[in-house]
Amino acid sequence: MIHEKLLRPRSIVVVGASNNVTKPGGKVIKNLLDHQYKGDLFAVNPKENSIQGIPSFTDVSDLPDIDLAILAIPARFCLDAVTELAEEHDTKAFIIISAGFGEQDAKGKELEKQIVEVVNKNGACLIGPNCIGVMTPYHASVFTTPVPPLTPEGCDFISGSGATAVFIIESGIPKGLRFANIFSVGNSAQTGVEDVLAYLDENYEEGVSSKVKLLYVENINDPDKLLFHASSLINKGCKIAAIKAGSSDAGSRAASSHTGALTSSDAAVDALFRKAGIVRCYGREELTTVASVFMCKPLTGRKLAIVTHAGGPGVMLTDALEDGGLKIPAIEDSPTKDALLQKLFPGSSVENPIDFLATGTAEQLGEIIDACENDFDVDGMAVIFGSPGLFPIGDVYDLLSEKMKVCQKPIYPILPSIINVKEDVAHFIARGNVNFPDEVLLGRALTKVMHTSPPALVSATNPYVDPAKVREIIAQTHNGYQAPEVIHNLFDLAGIPRVKELVATNETEAVLAAMNIGFPVVMKVVGPVHKTEVGGVVLNIRNVGDVRKEFHHLAGIEGAEGVLIAQMASGMELFLGATYEDTFGHVILCGMGGIYVEVMKDVASGLAPLTLSEAHSMIRSLKSYKLLKGYRKQPGIDIDRYAEIIVRLSWLLRYATEIKEIDINPLLGNASEILAVDARIRVEK
Amino acid sequence: MIHEKLLRPRSIVVVGASNNVTKPGGKVIKNLLDHQYKGDLFAVNPKENSIQGIPSFTDVSDLPDIDLAILAIPARFCLDAVTELAEEHDTKAFIIISAGFGEQDAKGKELEKQIVEVVNKNGACLIGPNCIGVMTPYHASVFTTPVPPLTPEGCDFISGSGATAVFIIESGIPKGLRFANIFSVGNSAQTGVEDVLAYLDENYEEGVSSKVKLLYVENINDPDKLLFHASSLINKGCKIAAIKAGSSDAGSRAASSHTGALTSSDAAVDALFRKAGIVRCYGREELTTVASVFMCKPLTGRKLAIVTHAGGPGVMLTDALEDGGLKIPAIEDSPTKDALLQKLFPGSSVENPIDFLATGTAEQLGEIIDACENDFDVDGMAVIFGSPGLFPIGDVYDLLSEKMKVCQKPIYPILPSIINVKEDVAHFIARGNVNFPDEVLLGRALTKVMHTSPPALVSATNPYVDPAKVREIIAQTHNGYQAPEVIHNLFDLAGIPRVKELVATNETEAVLAAMNIGFPVVMKVVGPVHKTEVGGVVLNIRNVGDVRKEFHHLAGIEGAEGVLIAQMASGMELFLGATYEDTFGHVILCGMGGIYVEVMKDVASGLAPLTLSEAHSMIRSLKSYKLLKGYRKQPGIDIDRYAEIIVRLSWLLRYATEIKEIDINPLLGNASEILAVDARIRVEK
Repeated sequence: MIHEKLLRPRSIVVVGASNNVTKPGGKVIKNLLDHQYKGDLFAVNPKENSIQGIPSFTDVSDLPDIDLAILAIPARFCLDAVTELAEEHDTKAFIIISAGFGEQDAKGKELEKQIVEVVNKNGACLIGPNCIGVMTPYHASVFTTPVPPLTPEGCDFISGSGATAVFIIESGIPKGLRFANIFSVGNSAQTGVEDVLAYLDENYEEGVSSKVKLLYVENINDPDKLLFHASSLINKGCKIAAIKAGSSDAGSRAASSHTGALTSSDAAVDALFRKAGIVRCYGREELTTVASVFMCKPLTGRKLAIVTHAGGPGVMLTDALEDGGLKIPAIEDSPTKDALLQKLFPGSSVENPIDFLATGTAEQLGEIIDACENDFDVDGMAVIFGSPGLFPIGDVYDLLSEKMKVCQKPIYPILPSIINVKEDVAHFIARGNVNFPDEVLLGRALTKVMHTSPPALVSATNPYVDPAKVREIIAQTHNGYQAPEVIHNLFDLAGIPRVKELVATNETEAVLAAMNIGFPVVMKVVGPVHKTEVGGVVLNIRNVGDVRKEFHHLAGIEGAEGVLIAQMASGMELFLGATYEDTFGHVILCGMGGIYVEVMKDVASGLAPLTLSEAHSMIRSLKSYKLLKGYRKQPGIDIDRYAEIIVRLSWLLRYATEIKEIDINPLLGNASEILAVDARIRVEK
Repeated sequence: MIHEKLLRPRSIVVVGASNNVTKPGGKVIKNLLDHQYKGDLFAVNPKENSIQGIPSFTDVSDLPDIDLAILAIPARFCLDAVTELAEEHDTKAFIIISAGFGEQDAKGKELEKQIVEVVNKNGACLIGPNCIGVMTPYHASVFTTPVPPLTPEGCDFISGSGATAVFIIESGIPKGLRFANIFSVGNSAQTGVEDVLAYLDENYEEGVSSKVKLLYVENINDPDKLLFHASSLINKGCKIAAIKAGSSDAGSRAASSHTGALTSSDAAVDALFRKAGIVRCYGREELTTVASVFMCKPLTGRKLAIVTHAGGPGVMLTDALEDGGLKIPAIEDSPTKDALLQKLFPGSSVENPIDFLATGTAEQLGEIIDACENDFDVDGMAVIFGSPGLFPIGDVYDLLSEKMKVCQKPIYPILPSIINVKEDVAHFIARGNVNFPDEVLLGRALTKVMHTSPPALVSATNPYVDPAKVREIIAQTHNGYQAPEVIHNLFDLAGIPRVKELVATNETEAVLAAMNIGFPVVMKVVGPVHKTEVGGVVLNIRNVGDVRKEFHHLAGIEGAEGVLIAQMASGMELFLGATYEDTFGHVILCGMGGIYVEVMKDVASGLAPLTLSEAHSMIRSLKSYKLLKGYRKQPGIDIDRYAEIIVRLSWLLRYATEIKEIDINPLLGNASEILAVDARIRVEK
């Protein structure tokens, strides 16, 4: 949990403060002073009366009441300090910087637990241990640098790793990225990434809170919480980007050895982020570039104008954006276009990219931006303007900065000359702007953002299955693979259509069964395991005479206990399945069956429970979607029905977490019906 | 062409020199002086006696003999100046910075042509016009900044765009990228990117010339020349990375509007680069990162150790490398491993990543690197070391720098704290090292480099087709789609196997034909266009009686001119085709037919003529490769045979550039034979 006093403490004490600023206890004081913390600041150090000019106490017991305590003392002294402060000094927020806890050994883990108990008992909050601290616009309670610009309009950033947080901040600052609140949760003894996100959601204030959230996580301990609050924040108008490190097998091992926790399956993470509407990033550079995109005005369409004074970067950006599905439409002929061209130097081009040459001026840029804003059919602009180093170009950047403020359409500034006009770029950034030094990295980030769907609107209840009845069936299952009856019952309950089948023990039953099911039928011997090998499967039986004949043949096979008569389904072979991932729940997979799933790896995934719109989006994302719709002479399948079956399965599983694996294979589909022919379900309680 | 005097001029004149360093004619003098050009430097300016302290002449005719002339005067004065210098002052190298030539209008184009004539007549070389200039370790003849470190060990860089060259240099400098020779070819009036590359190849000196070449191109005017010299350089031990901008349709339009030249088809560029062994990059950041990888020692295997003092970046790098097919193998237990662990602080991990904690020292890093170099089964190391900003870490970087020099295995340094330890990073770079500030961008660049194959060794002659005979057949073709006989002749010539077929005009001929071909056969009516619709195709005819019956049926169809009897081929449907791309030649496409090519877009491409090893690599790159090899019960095809047919087609096309399109569809293949069933060839002379 996060306490208000962590964010806006009226008083702070650093326990273990030092005059040596190369030590954490010294640097945190320096940061607080450098960034002008306005409340009361105290230090505790048994050997000093004053630390960096602020009053120092020899013992925590001597302190007055304190809102926030930052501990930079050896692990073994922390419990006493926390207890004294929480119980005697009304301290409601703790940041334990010190290491030597759960990340080290069992003893440390136990100590951590005891501290959390004290903190919880006193209704306080704890960040860490083993973290770099917390930064807000009110206080820079970290022992690291750099402290980035902290302002309510900046990004909120929650990191599961302190060092990585530092490196991400270092990647963001040169781009002009500003921050609001930064939390390094360390061992997450009391407060994890999900908890901080929950607080930011529950205390979100429109117009006050930051609209951009960045996450760096190595483990997702509570996927449901993350999903709920991320979705909620995004539905309130926020944007979220996150790195979940440890996506490869070796990466997972690396993450585990680093944090001592198991890493969640990557497919589940993917599905979770997609469902929540989180933009998944795979590196620091990408995260800070996506964050910079978030800091610009929202792009509401797919059409961009590229405005440039140099050809090359314009071409490379065009390639990157078109490659990602955005459009750089030709500017249509119009009087405005002609008039604009008149205002530019000869040789300029008002196509798209709009190239106003190396000699282009601030005034001309203003005219171009105005035309894009007011007249041309584009949804946003990317402006590329560097310098060969002949003279300063501050006037151009000042104009750009102004236009970015007043235009309704987003403007993405690409100022590549980070050496030639270093000061001009610094000034541009100091005005509160971001910069994208590399146009291709911007292009990829922007298309990634544009391809992220809004959160799925999953309702809490469902019209598909009766949870109580699901539980009833599951209660009666044993561990392992389930018998056909269990599968039939579950499918019937969930409304997953399956081929009709009946078992007959004499000829008359067989005939009645076949007539009941309707011709053609399939007949299979019941009993022998390897049915095909003993000639125990007969397909495509079309009349009563053949039913009689085949019954006698099948019933005569050694080991026969009866004969199964089943509907003869036909159509395209589809695939539908799911696996249960610890804490995440079921990851549903769908696609075309056979070689499409096995060889071409053409599979879509989603996290249960799914909405119809999610199921449709999964189906659409398949490469074989064209085949499902019907291709050339080959008819397609009933896609609405397929989507519905996917959703029904997801809700069935929602109430049956004991089902660890399910494979409906084959699921045969045509334009009028989709039927499960066979399925396998593994239960583990 | 490039003249030796362009690279090492004993004397340089700047015509249009200025005391105003915000003008090109002023800045180029300043750059030459700042970078200590050691030869004789002169200026020409009608109004000054001295420019920035060097002697200035009022007219070019007053000059002594000059090796290199840099022109920064209006376009209309250039021809006279060039003529005077080339004819009277033995000037063998010209750089024309001025714009206003071919890029502007027809008049400029004409002027450009006249200048080239003079230059050529006098055996001189011309760079530009409309360029930023040339930089070598001997002289910085550019009007732009920044001038990067210039040393023979740096990269050679050839750019088709001056501004883009500046921005690429600005992207490279912070990474520690150094350069040898930089050429901005501008309008390429005499000397284009390919010509410079040819010079670098023809004058390559082992141990002296730079081993890394970077290209930025918007148009490839002479693909053969590029292919030849790039392959040659790479075979000499060089590495080449290139951006070819304009890969999307809109990007091509952008590139065209920028340079006034048509952009080459992107698939052809891809195929060309693959054949040459060039690493294709898509942005400045990627190009300079790949170049930095090239500056490290070569990685000879796929196994890397990641050495880090912070978990997060180690995990993200592991993900990026494993995702790209490199291996981060677990370090196997051994006495060395145990001994190493003893030397690290408690809590360190000698798995892989090797994590030596935030408190890790230079000495410990040295021990780890030595173990990786001498004992552990890895081919290289990535070392991640940043700083939370408490104290300088120069000692660590000094050690890293030393180890990078002495180790045989490559070490990739990731120093992310570009703000916290800015000076230490700057010092590290000043020692001649590169730095990869973002581990994921390094990971992607490294895997890209590892996945680039060496140049294809295409021999000049071929054992597959007789060029003279191909030309004979092509000579007789008309424009448009070709008749079956032409296709048959070409296929027979190239040894592309096809189904046997004969035309019969009476029953006896039909029977003989069927017996000759062998049953089963297919019979088709000859004459009617829509054969299937008039019932004019009969498959799978298995005996003489049926041949007789079907002959009468088919011959009776309205418009029948005869009956075709063809071999009934069976097997997997394959695809093989090619299109001719101007100047590049034929781009060959192969894959499985039907929905695999049409819907799944599972196609591989290569540039004709192909080697067997290229054809095999194309086939292996298909997603459906598993199916071609045989999957489950389904047998595969004779892959060697398929590869051979691809190669044969490529050599056929090599001598038949008039074939603009060819589609062999279907090509049916099984384990014993592959046969072309039908094909379409379009000729355009």
